[in-house]
Amino acid sequence: MLSVDEALAKIVETVAPLSARPVALDDALGLVLAEDVVADLDSPPFDKSLMDGFAVRSADVPDGRATLEVVETITAGGVPTKTIAGGQAARIMTGAPIPDGADAVVKIEETRFDEATGRVEIETSRCEPRTNTIVRGTNTRSGETVLRTGRRLRPQELGTLAELGRATLSAFGRPRVAILATGDELVPVGETPGAGQIRNSNETMLVAQVRRAGAEAVPLGIARDERAHLRERIEQGLACDVLLLSGGVSMGTLDLVPSELQAAGVREVFHKVHVKPGKPVWFGLRDATPERPATYVFGLPGNPVSSMVCGELFARTAIRRLTGLPHAGPRVERGQMNHPYVNRGDRPVYHPALTDTTSGQTWVTLAPWHGSSDLRATVEANAMALLLPESELTRGSPVDVVRWD
Amino acid sequence: MLSVDEALAKIVETVAPLSARPVALDDALGLVLAEDVVADLDSPPFDKSLMDGFAVRSADVPDGRATLEVVETITAGGVPTKTIAGGQAARIMTGAPIPDGADAVVKIEETRFDEATGRVEIETSRCEPRTNTIVRGTNTRSGETVLRTGRRLRPQELGTLAELGRATLSAFGRPRVAILATGDELVPVGETPGAGQIRNSNETMLVAQVRRAGAEAVPLGIARDERAHLRERIEQGLACDVLLLSGGVSMGTLDLVPSELQAAGVREVFHKVHVKPGKPVWFGLRDATPERPATYVFGLPGNPVSSMVCGELFARTAIRRLTGLPHAGPRVERGQMNHPYVNRGDRPVYHPALTDTTSGQTWVTLAPWHGSSDLRATVEANAMALLLPESELTRGSPVDVVRWD
Repeated sequence: MLSVDEALAKIVETVAPLSARPVALDDALGLVLAEDVVADLDSPPFDKSLMDGFAVRSADVPDGRATLEVVETITAGGVPTKTIAGGQAARIMTGAPIPDGADAVVKIEETRFDEATGRVEIETSRCEPRTNTIVRGTNTRSGETVLRTGRRLRPQELGTLAELGRATLSAFGRPRVAILATGDELVPVGETPGAGQIRNSNETMLVAQVRRAGAEAVPLGIARDERAHLRERIEQGLACDVLLLSGGVSMGTLDLVPSELQAAGVREVFHKVHVKPGKPVWFGLRDATPERPATYVFGLPGNPVSSMVCGELFARTAIRRLTGLPHAGPRVERGQMNHPYVNRGDRPVYHPALTDTTSGQTWVTLAPWHGSSDLRATVEANAMALLLPESELTRGSPVDVVRWD
Repeated sequence: MLSVDEALAKIVETVAPLSARPVALDDALGLVLAEDVVADLDSPPFDKSLMDGFAVRSADVPDGRATLEVVETITAGGVPTKTIAGGQAARIMTGAPIPDGADAVVKIEETRFDEATGRVEIETSRCEPRTNTIVRGTNTRSGETVLRTGRRLRPQELGTLAELGRATLSAFGRPRVAILATGDELVPVGETPGAGQIRNSNETMLVAQVRRAGAEAVPLGIARDERAHLRERIEQGLACDVLLLSGGVSMGTLDLVPSELQAAGVREVFHKVHVKPGKPVWFGLRDATPERPATYVFGLPGNPVSSMVCGELFARTAIRRLTGLPHAGPRVERGQMNHPYVNRGDRPVYHPALTDTTSGQTWVTLAPWHGSSDLRATVEANAMALLLPESELTRGSPVDVVRWD
């Protein structure tokens, strides 16, 4: 049986990023850049004032005091028309270009302008070359590579691309993920379950997990434990980039999912991983053809916490890989146990946990948990903690966590 | 001048959560619950098998071995029709109800079923009362309060609400946030800046920040430094819950924003905060009337990093408060400096920084940064680190960070 790391490596090796395509800058949040971006101009594009005040020659203000003749006002968006000579200054706004001759700005709070004489009195503690200015090209030089392919686009990357005039850019696609819950025991959320039945909570949860991962969710409802019906829904799901099935992958006589997937041309990459919860997890793909891209298929165990954990560990890795991220695996952080815990089992356990990072260390407290059907435990958690098999942890023992929020 | 904490307290005190309204479960991701949710049934609703296998009387399998008569098959979604007597078993699927008489499940891998005789041979290491079962009501009891008002809805909360049959729920609204960049120096991202001009990168960045905060962004383009034009755009923005202006709040002659806001009936709560970058930040509101709710207005400084930092610190606190979160302030984590740093200034600095949490501690490395116009520095950062005034930090010194991603 594969270990979690082996299963993750198989996923990364099997899944190929979606094709790159042009995207409007305003639609790009959370996508991954598919090109290297080169600056088309210097940033800032000219020597610039960082303050509202007066542009001066710093040599005119050797001891912080001077009275200077004001020759013009330069607004942001305006252009200086005069060179500042000895004894002169220009009134200047934040973001406006520094006029020739001047090399520093004295902020307005340290000046007194006399309307009648057109002169400004200066009293400042500091006026050296470059004071309150920023020189052209300090942040970025024209021709420099500013962002590289594989970069996830956050507000600061988008702002930087806007500075560079990139109203469109090349990004990897946003994956479409179909969600299909299987099992005759399921009823829609709005209905009252009969004897032996439960509500289809996995669809709701997986749809939210997929959206949180930055992908588009395509919910397909409930598939009954009946071959023809299941086959039809699977075909629908195979039109997406990923198909997540929940339930139907353990060893019961009605677990039709693996055989129906095979019939639909989906080949198995792995079935079962040495992990708790989630051991029966199934992964495979329908290969790409010249007509259509590949579809990656996960059979997630039906118990809600198994489904959630396998969704975060395995399906999310496939989604990250599809979006073009170079490091697709779960983002593991190191914490330390806040209390003792013994895992007597022979499988690694991903246990609902609450992390506290307010003290300089990441303290990890396990949430009370009744096992794979106890979704409520995850509500009190913000992470899953990895408890190694046959391990005895004490307060302060190192423990790896993957955050859920 | 207010400290950052005083300014945040003013925002929390001034801003009221949006009204609660009914929301479809599928549209609720990221919203905040506005009701206490009580379980309408036990979870699980019946004693349930956690495995595919055979339901048995544990007393029949005292030393892990037995041969039992199989009286029926219980599928998930099905209902047992027989009571298990001594010497009997029922084949059972994961999620199916435990039949009367039985008290444990032996998993299928530890059994051998003989089709011809209808008998199952069992060889297991453990078969005690409750083995591989979960008892009705273990996770939740009917009538119990499962989620309380003020809870942010993540995939696990939504899954739990689905289990409870809540196809709709009461949640606080999603804020609408208008974004208006001001200044004659700005040109749209798709245009080439002329002399003295720069591209309107703040709109792109603030729109993405607002979306990342879970709110709806309403970009209003560029307002020129001209009263009538600015007034019209401000009126448009006041139709939203929040109006973010960037630029126009420092001390220059063309900084028309504060006076135009006043003319539009927006009253100042504070102007200027003891912080770097972002000192000129402005906050106020147009009070609610019987006809319309209040609008909260931020004047953010125009330099991109000032705008971003004030957006994350102040505007995001207002957004969190509007969404109904009980703790609306920035989520501060404690880390430690990875290198020495001296802040000689008299203001606290929020410095772009990179955190590393892979080692059990949060190590903080400051990004190289040329000041408030240097947006590119933030691209290499995932957090802002708070450097106190006149402080001398060494490697290992504690330092607070607010994450950006």
